[in-house]
Amino acid sequence: MISVKDVQQAQERIRDIARVTPIFQSDQLSNICGNNLFLKTEHLQKTGSFKIRGASNKVIQATETGATYVTTASSGNHGQAVAYITNSYNIPSTIVVPENSSQCKVDAIHAYQGKIEKCGTTSEERLARAQEIATETNGIYVPPYDDPFVMAGQGVVGLEIIEQVEDIDIILVPVGGGGLLSGILTAVKETHPHIKVIGVEPENAKDTYLSLQNKTITSSPASTIADGLRTSQPGELTFPVVMKYVDDLVLVSEDEIRHAFTFVMERTKQLIEPSSATAIAAVMFNKIHAKDKNIVSVISGGNVDVDQIDQFLKLS
Amino acid sequence: MISVKDVQQAQERIRDIARVTPIFQSDQLSNICGNNLFLKTEHLQKTGSFKIRGASNKVIQATETGATYVTTASSGNHGQAVAYITNSYNIPSTIVVPENSSQCKVDAIHAYQGKIEKCGTTSEERLARAQEIATETNGIYVPPYDDPFVMAGQGVVGLEIIEQVEDIDIILVPVGGGGLLSGILTAVKETHPHIKVIGVEPENAKDTYLSLQNKTITSSPASTIADGLRTSQPGELTFPVVMKYVDDLVLVSEDEIRHAFTFVMERTKQLIEPSSATAIAAVMFNKIHAKDKNIVSVISGGNVDVDQIDQFLKLS
Repeated sequence: MISVKDVQQAQERIRDIARVTPIFQSDQLSNICGNNLFLKTEHLQKTGSFKIRGASNKVIQATETGATYVTTASSGNHGQAVAYITNSYNIPSTIVVPENSSQCKVDAIHAYQGKIEKCGTTSEERLARAQEIATETNGIYVPPYDDPFVMAGQGVVGLEIIEQVEDIDIILVPVGGGGLLSGILTAVKETHPHIKVIGVEPENAKDTYLSLQNKTITSSPASTIADGLRTSQPGELTFPVVMKYVDDLVLVSEDEIRHAFTFVMERTKQLIEPSSATAIAAVMFNKIHAKDKNIVSVISGGNVDVDQIDQFLKLS
Repeated sequence: MISVKDVQQAQERIRDIARVTPIFQSDQLSNICGNNLFLKTEHLQKTGSFKIRGASNKVIQATETGATYVTTASSGNHGQAVAYITNSYNIPSTIVVPENSSQCKVDAIHAYQGKIEKCGTTSEERLARAQEIATETNGIYVPPYDDPFVMAGQGVVGLEIIEQVEDIDIILVPVGGGGLLSGILTAVKETHPHIKVIGVEPENAKDTYLSLQNKTITSSPASTIADGLRTSQPGELTFPVVMKYVDDLVLVSEDEIRHAFTFVMERTKQLIEPSSATAIAAVMFNKIHAKDKNIVSVISGGNVDVDQIDQFLKLS
């Protein structure tokens, strides 16, 4: 398992790459939620999501130990992050994406000068191809979450929150593969064990919820507008950390996600991903039974296809 | 004419009401524009626009001199601002809005506990009714822009910009009735005359552009998605200030506004009004013929009916 020292090393390693994103406090959100609500704004992070933290920590460490080529398999935030960091460090890389990727996502990777290879439509096909290229090039494959350096990089979000907000009671974290949650848990629980860290999943993608119930990694089909959380099961490295440290894991419905997405846009003028809206919905709909607490919701990213916004809105 | 002293007094008067909004610098916007672009983020202001500054300055001054009732005629940002400040100060008020106001705008005024009266469909009818109520109640009517205290309040945006950004070359300001522009011109030109201040209007609402050409107040029909800039002519008090100080006034097309609106949302994750997007469009489409300059674009507000966003998008 990673330790807080790994997260602290990551913080040093990625200091010149990742931004220390600001904390927003919203009076209107706080009032409606009955708690003091703070947003950790990773949607204002470079590349538009927290993923740059883990990707940078992994890629910089790998190049320090001799890697000269990088691959990954992701058309989403992780793909953009790997394209950005390898371009910044002038390391050749290939981002393997599905044949049916939206033009918008392909454009975003191209914007960071990423070399794209289209391959199949399943994650197994893409993963195999990315690993094949890594082997051919004597390079490294960067996993989206199930990797100690990736997890430690994401954990820097936790270190920053502790530095930025006083007297935190609860931190809410959206859960996909568990990279962000396991990193934050390591950073927070090894230094401030009294702070509650609670994961949030869509009801329609509750693989980590079920895995915690069963005390073993359990698959579950994912069908949610929160596209960043559509993993079918938690990682082999992330899940033990989650099981050891997490205080609770709560579920939110698609309708609750839409409500929160719309409310955040209307009241704070911020465009956040539906995945991030889960961490607001959990407070708005009182899934955590808290009142007058200092709560930090981690806004994991803001990369939304703008022509899909109307699908995410809850119109009254 | 107002002077910078009026603006400085306004800054003191509204210190506990209006926020000092942050300045954002966007690398991506700067790169595409070929200039160092800073955004003055009045969309993060209380009530979602700069209008709270002028309304507060007017209302606080009026109550200090004995007014006990406040009216205005606006279903938009100015109406919300007057509702907010009168509610904060426990001053009874009436906001006169058109019969056909969207529910979204009425809800926003209700959210600040504003008392709403619906009246007619033309601005003349509403203005007459608001002034009538003011007379009946021995109260004051708060104009949306053509008032020395309102203009001075909006000018505080200019004082803040000067404090927040070093070595400014150009400030770009969206122009409706000219309250914001005349206030900023007074603040900036009386203290830092070398800074260029340039107004931006939609091609489809170019009343101030024509007035400057004609050197006299000139009406022009307004038909633009930039709903905050749909005035038919500049004010009798604002226009002389604009004519005296403004360095230039440039026009942007509806298509250019949509491009800028979409670009800002995609790259900075900020929801801004189409009215504000004009001040970005002017740099993106090089209307001001500047290169490698330090440019501040004033983002005047972020109150958008979210169900109308798709009408404002420029989809590639």
